[in-house]
Amino acid sequence: MTSPVTPTTSRRGFLKAGLATGGALAAGGAAAQEPDPLITEVQHWAQGFGEGVDATPYGLPIDYESDVVRRNVEWLTADVISSINFTPIHALDGTITPQGCAFERHHSGAIDLPKEDYRLMINGLVDTPLVFTYWDLERFPRENHVYFCECAANTGMEWAGAQLNGAQFTHGMIHNMEYTGVPLRTLLNEAGIRTEGKWIFVEGADASSNGRSIPLDKALDDCLVAFKANGEALRKEHGYPVRLVVPGWEGNLWVKWLRRIEVTDGPVESREETSKYTDTLANGISRKWTWVMDAKSVVTSPSPQSPITHGPGPLVITGLAWSGRGAIQRVDVSIDGGKTWQVARLAQPGQPMALTRFYLDIEWDGSEMLLQSRAMDSSGYVQPTKNELRDVRGLNSIYHNNGIQTWWVKANGEAENVEVS
Amino acid sequence: MTSPVTPTTSRRGFLKAGLATGGALAAGGAAAQEPDPLITEVQHWAQGFGEGVDATPYGLPIDYESDVVRRNVEWLTADVISSINFTPIHALDGTITPQGCAFERHHSGAIDLPKEDYRLMINGLVDTPLVFTYWDLERFPRENHVYFCECAANTGMEWAGAQLNGAQFTHGMIHNMEYTGVPLRTLLNEAGIRTEGKWIFVEGADASSNGRSIPLDKALDDCLVAFKANGEALRKEHGYPVRLVVPGWEGNLWVKWLRRIEVTDGPVESREETSKYTDTLANGISRKWTWVMDAKSVVTSPSPQSPITHGPGPLVITGLAWSGRGAIQRVDVSIDGGKTWQVARLAQPGQPMALTRFYLDIEWDGSEMLLQSRAMDSSGYVQPTKNELRDVRGLNSIYHNNGIQTWWVKANGEAENVEVS
Repeated sequence: MTSPVTPTTSRRGFLKAGLATGGALAAGGAAAQEPDPLITEVQHWAQGFGEGVDATPYGLPIDYESDVVRRNVEWLTADVISSINFTPIHALDGTITPQGCAFERHHSGAIDLPKEDYRLMINGLVDTPLVFTYWDLERFPRENHVYFCECAANTGMEWAGAQLNGAQFTHGMIHNMEYTGVPLRTLLNEAGIRTEGKWIFVEGADASSNGRSIPLDKALDDCLVAFKANGEALRKEHGYPVRLVVPGWEGNLWVKWLRRIEVTDGPVESREETSKYTDTLANGISRKWTWVMDAKSVVTSPSPQSPITHGPGPLVITGLAWSGRGAIQRVDVSIDGGKTWQVARLAQPGQPMALTRFYLDIEWDGSEMLLQSRAMDSSGYVQPTKNELRDVRGLNSIYHNNGIQTWWVKANGEAENVEVS
Repeated sequence: MTSPVTPTTSRRGFLKAGLATGGALAAGGAAAQEPDPLITEVQHWAQGFGEGVDATPYGLPIDYESDVVRRNVEWLTADVISSINFTPIHALDGTITPQGCAFERHHSGAIDLPKEDYRLMINGLVDTPLVFTYWDLERFPRENHVYFCECAANTGMEWAGAQLNGAQFTHGMIHNMEYTGVPLRTLLNEAGIRTEGKWIFVEGADASSNGRSIPLDKALDDCLVAFKANGEALRKEHGYPVRLVVPGWEGNLWVKWLRRIEVTDGPVESREETSKYTDTLANGISRKWTWVMDAKSVVTSPSPQSPITHGPGPLVITGLAWSGRGAIQRVDVSIDGGKTWQVARLAQPGQPMALTRFYLDIEWDGSEMLLQSRAMDSSGYVQPTKNELRDVRGLNSIYHNNGIQTWWVKANGEAENVEVS
């Protein structure tokens, strides 16, 4: 393994040997004056002017990156208006997810809701039922936090074994954005919660309304009524103009186009929170209210959609780790299917309920690898293997699969989604 | 001033009084059942389905936000291929700048440079001149850091007095993104720096080449050879596929389409770093090598492009602060042109060489205000007034105007760029 900061001689080795791939010039100052044939044969500097600053008032990715987009899986749902799309995590680095390619899911389509028409009602067991306009919300003290939003069904297809071939599809039902909004407790306190109020029921303005019950203690803790993500207005598909942010908890609770918050004395047990988003165990009994997303991680590169395109030598292994119960404290990486582990380097100290980027910089010997990552969070929880999960949960589950993922990286650099026993 | 977390009764007051703007229902549980006329008169929930998840593989802002875009000022430069565009900071919140609306400046147009054609040469006073392909760079250990990039000319038009009416134009030559890249020292050490090497000269692949001299100690400290911003590939206008990141220093050193790094025994003193980007004092002598961006701040809302649209009562004052010499430790806000100051609330603890969001939540009495903000950084430096700057620098300067900005907010909520003596 190489040091995270000091390059090894072997790195220089691959560069010296690398002329065929545009590597080093022959050593020596004089030689440095000789043009690299590869430099003269490609136009690697401009012969004329490029685009002006007025060309892109709002810019999009360059055409060469047109494959770095959200994708949905046609067979996964009956219709695209109640479906999911996936963040291209295999092609991203860092931790922030741009809104334009950030995972989103909706139950009756992304609706068009102008700020002028927006209303948020707080009613039920409150002293003063209130209705807020969008501009009312902008008058309350705001907070900013980077949080991940993960669908409870992320990795759900993998319960029965390796299914989908690509980190985007196995783990891409997640995004990580800097949300700006008003603490939900501020608005609830404004209405005044009666002593009988123990839960809230939140609804969206879309046709599904997507009602969800949330215990009052979570509502009063860290939930945000958010109107911006990564600094700018929420995109239409992320709930413009206002969505709920429920840090560390299932994405389906992060109600978009937030319309109504009713304070109740108990959970509503709506269709979508009973027939769906529950975990049926081997004995047929379903666990409900399993809102918190446990510690999880995945190697994003190399991976099936991000194969190794070079030979043996220096290789950057990277991925993402997160926990709904706190901050990521450590990530281990195995290249031999979990027999041995190395401590990965965290790009930054883990932040509560936010994605953490990890790296392991190795000298790849060119032989095949069984790549795995294992996350540990500030609660002391360690990410389990898929079989450890199955022993406890059986095979009837869809949601909350946070088992350790394995990529079989072959000698030719290609990777496949596999399971190790 | 209100508490940052607990709403005041006056907030409920404006809601109770606010029916005309969709405020509170009449108090009482029974009344909560009565529909708000404003809710029935607007379609505030969907009567049908919205867009499917396949509608936006890569999403753009919703049409209602079409004014939240970069803008350039026609008269500022002779041609848009050597010009500047401005981040719409008046409309953003949080700290991250989306790439699509992030400030950028170039000297001969944004060029189209495919990864296949990309080469980075390191030559000059090195043991082994090297040429890297894009994929070579991806094999070195990476880092992730959120840094601001500010043009030395940001606020430059204001030396002679209040000129441009809008925070986007006075202070929008700045962005703040999470950059991913290889430490420059890693690549320089790979080539091996000779003892005579004291500076580097960096060039871009655009026609201007935009050569810049940087002392070796900065090059070996925290500079990054970056290929991603906010998780995804650099946009074309931000230097795709590779740019230099020089934390805390003038944006013109952050060379885009980075082509060559020559290790030299002294500065090259290129045209662009002598005839431009120097600070001419009152006596006609020009200061050079003034690379570091000093502590600075600006109120982004209310501001000329973001007027107050409501009457007296709760008002959120917000803005941005940053320093190239460390982290923002404190921001003060004045509503009376600097006679009295209140300590603003920082959304998060300041991070070195990154934007910090601040808030001051007040009860606005509806009278006019002279809004100012004053930043303090971890070096102990306090942002000066414009007149304090002029006393030292005279009126010949263009760059490095970090003086305190004043917005005259009128009783009708509109704001103007003004100066106070």
